[in-house]
Amino acid sequence: MLMTHKKPDASNIVIFGGNGDLAWRKLIPAFYNLYINDFMPEKFAIYGIHHQAMDPDDYKKHLLEGINTFSRSGKATREQWRKFSNHIFFFQGDFTQDDTYKRLGASLEANDKKWKLRASRLFYYSVAPRFIEAISVALSRNKMANIPAKDRIVVEKPFGNDLASAKALNKLLTKHFKESQVYRIDHYLGKETVQNMMAFRFANYVFEPLWNNRFIDHVQISVAEKVSVAGRGGYYDQSGALRDMIQNHLMQVMCVVAMDCPGKYEAETIRDARVKVVREIRLFKRSEVFKNVVRAQYTAGKVDGKMQCSYRQEEKVADDSDTETFVAARLFIDNERWKGVPFFLRTGKCLPKQSSVIVIQFKESPHKLFKDDAVPNRLIISIQPEQEISLLFESKIPGVEMKLKPVEMDFTYKESYTEAVPEAYEALLLDVLEGDATLFMRADQVEAAWAMVMPILNAWKTTDKDLHFYKAGTWGPPEADDLIRRQGFDWIFLPEPLQPAEKKKKTRKKAVSL
Amino acid sequence: MLMTHKKPDASNIVIFGGNGDLAWRKLIPAFYNLYINDFMPEKFAIYGIHHQAMDPDDYKKHLLEGINTFSRSGKATREQWRKFSNHIFFFQGDFTQDDTYKRLGASLEANDKKWKLRASRLFYYSVAPRFIEAISVALSRNKMANIPAKDRIVVEKPFGNDLASAKALNKLLTKHFKESQVYRIDHYLGKETVQNMMAFRFANYVFEPLWNNRFIDHVQISVAEKVSVAGRGGYYDQSGALRDMIQNHLMQVMCVVAMDCPGKYEAETIRDARVKVVREIRLFKRSEVFKNVVRAQYTAGKVDGKMQCSYRQEEKVADDSDTETFVAARLFIDNERWKGVPFFLRTGKCLPKQSSVIVIQFKESPHKLFKDDAVPNRLIISIQPEQEISLLFESKIPGVEMKLKPVEMDFTYKESYTEAVPEAYEALLLDVLEGDATLFMRADQVEAAWAMVMPILNAWKTTDKDLHFYKAGTWGPPEADDLIRRQGFDWIFLPEPLQPAEKKKKTRKKAVSL
Repeated sequence: MLMTHKKPDASNIVIFGGNGDLAWRKLIPAFYNLYINDFMPEKFAIYGIHHQAMDPDDYKKHLLEGINTFSRSGKATREQWRKFSNHIFFFQGDFTQDDTYKRLGASLEANDKKWKLRASRLFYYSVAPRFIEAISVALSRNKMANIPAKDRIVVEKPFGNDLASAKALNKLLTKHFKESQVYRIDHYLGKETVQNMMAFRFANYVFEPLWNNRFIDHVQISVAEKVSVAGRGGYYDQSGALRDMIQNHLMQVMCVVAMDCPGKYEAETIRDARVKVVREIRLFKRSEVFKNVVRAQYTAGKVDGKMQCSYRQEEKVADDSDTETFVAARLFIDNERWKGVPFFLRTGKCLPKQSSVIVIQFKESPHKLFKDDAVPNRLIISIQPEQEISLLFESKIPGVEMKLKPVEMDFTYKESYTEAVPEAYEALLLDVLEGDATLFMRADQVEAAWAMVMPILNAWKTTDKDLHFYKAGTWGPPEADDLIRRQGFDWIFLPEPLQPAEKKKKTRKKAVSL
Repeated sequence: MLMTHKKPDASNIVIFGGNGDLAWRKLIPAFYNLYINDFMPEKFAIYGIHHQAMDPDDYKKHLLEGINTFSRSGKATREQWRKFSNHIFFFQGDFTQDDTYKRLGASLEANDKKWKLRASRLFYYSVAPRFIEAISVALSRNKMANIPAKDRIVVEKPFGNDLASAKALNKLLTKHFKESQVYRIDHYLGKETVQNMMAFRFANYVFEPLWNNRFIDHVQISVAEKVSVAGRGGYYDQSGALRDMIQNHLMQVMCVVAMDCPGKYEAETIRDARVKVVREIRLFKRSEVFKNVVRAQYTAGKVDGKMQCSYRQEEKVADDSDTETFVAARLFIDNERWKGVPFFLRTGKCLPKQSSVIVIQFKESPHKLFKDDAVPNRLIISIQPEQEISLLFESKIPGVEMKLKPVEMDFTYKESYTEAVPEAYEALLLDVLEGDATLFMRADQVEAAWAMVMPILNAWKTTDKDLHFYKAGTWGPPEADDLIRRQGFDWIFLPEPLQPAEKKKKTRKKAVSL
């Protein structure tokens, strides 16, 4: 998230789990795109660590296939791949064996010698959580990440499974490294439109003055997924939508929407502003949980015309699992800016569309001039699949009579930019190489986010009566719609056409007690 | 400007000057469009009064040609014209002869008898100002407009040539009619986008909270014309741009931009709100006139590739005329909302483009986060030739770095509406038929607008040293650019591409004392 570009320093990049899915689909394609766009350092090496032996050429061939399949820039050219792949090294090693680190350390030092400097080191934990301790202990014992200003540890979610385990994980990491060395990735923060929220809100002076409870009725943050949990059943059944999506991704988006303007453009100041939001989210009492949070699980149905089994029939999922694949929640931020403004968060698997949107629903105008006709303004920030911002406002229908209709003022990335939108991982990996932690989560934010969801997890442990079911391929249970209808509105998703004003008016009732 | 449509009552429409240019280009095509769109009353008659004898069929043929040339709906179909033209009557008569009114009155009464009711009467003064008195006296003496709730007088500009003559005209009109019967037309108020300002500002709650001196740096209202004064030299040389455009059209637009929200949707309340603006415009002292108002006259040059003679060479223009064909003014409204916010008004003949725009230039964000990069927000409401609203705002350029660029959020009539945009005269004539005076000027507003320009006219009488010259086909004299550059900005016009941020920044200096 650099304001100005300078090339990162020489870097040794070590991916634990170098033959894993994340490295294949995301990390290597991201490094490749950074490379062809001239953002990588002059001197760098990428080590893919894998516990089994593998022909280095086969490994590289596999990575090339990953780039050709997943890179936003399409297939790699022969020349570009040749140059880039010279920087990649397959490295066999058991994460739990000290020998691995001895050999790796010698190799990194050999690079330093060749480059005539001590290069930065980036250790990427693309591994199952059970390996984190072993790797950290070994890196620490072998003094491999011993220059805090240069050496960084990148950790992927899950950051624990509850508050206690998150605290334990943070304690472990900061035992071996300084907190400033630890980069906890939540790739939602790297998404282009999420990053743009800061510019949109704080570089302009037409939105921020309205960004509070005087003008905003409520906020919606909705991340709808079409995919099922297929292939991830073992992990997912221990996790669920609240842990997997709300506690991290949706919470990050909520922070960026709700944060106060940081005093300066500096990582800690911005992270302070984000964590403040999480800390001010109201912690629910047990009874409030059931009133404000709806959980549900998908049953068999059709998604995109394809039959989808019920969640309980998914591989490695318990037959009587009560893990939620859908959550809709009404949260409150107890501060001056947001008092009384509900934040509706929603996410689910096997929904009809892939659609991530932020909706800022404004209040009705106090002016009585067109009262009966006017639909309140709405700002929609679409994160994916489309990247766009649109403002719904009332306008006179052309004609000799004064009749109003809501229309849209639009801004789309597609029409406005010739620049390609990078993958979130590109922005984030470059930031790690640069040592810019702005878009990464600090220990205190992760813990605050867990503290926020714990009352919900605890309430759910006591009963499964509130677990609803929804047919795969539908928008979740009716209870989720009821939750927001009590506010007088419906869930908005894109790129569907907006619901007609008439429908909106019909469902608009007085909000229930907040 | 009706909120809901009901058909107007039966109407006798009398056009004094029925064979004139306005009737031919505007009035008859407007009535025709109202007719084919089913807005005209079931029972109506249009009398075209002309002092010379004419074959009624030739007259109708002439009107049909006017519709086919100027109507927005294109050529009239045979069937539609046949039906519509049955309502049109050529009527020979000298405006100054009592006999004319006797015969006309008898004809209107014959219609009433046929229709079995006393129809509304609309007397349209499409005549030179010198005939207004004679017609008014005669209508009054013959008791032809004697039912105030039904009978209306429509007056076209000019409404006087200065404050004294405007007062005299109002006195004359209200001697013979009630003020509520007098409809003073300023067709700018009937323009679709000008009408929409009310909806835009008061039916939404995202603009109005920003609509004041806390958030707005300045306002621009610019009406650029390509046409010269050719053919109108005799009138124009006695008038000039200040009287011909600023005192009425631009003043109306300024009222709609600056007015407070009227308490209810009702003609007198809305007219009160508009006149309040005019009354609060600062009256300049002589020295302030020369500091805040730039006048200029075109010299020979090329407009749209065609050679254009200098203003002084135009027919019926004095060789040494100091009449201005261009005015740029910086006005102030001395009230709480607008204290310190200059309104820049600009209009001129023989400019490079036909372009009427309103620009709301917002202030810089107080947030320091992106200070050096951020260009202040700008809302552009384009009146013609395009009808659109666009908001300039800062957005992050897609990429792995945090760089900003101003982009636009757009709303265009073309893309948003299937409904055709009616001509201003259609909306206004239907309003007269309905007896809705919302979009017409009351006597007090006309007088207030004259009172506002009188100090300027008086200062100009004392010297011609401040008269600048500009080549036809250019954007006026450099002094007009300097006037707004002292505010740190440039004149904006559409549909030209926006100036790059760089240019804007360079010219941005501290505003001079206001």
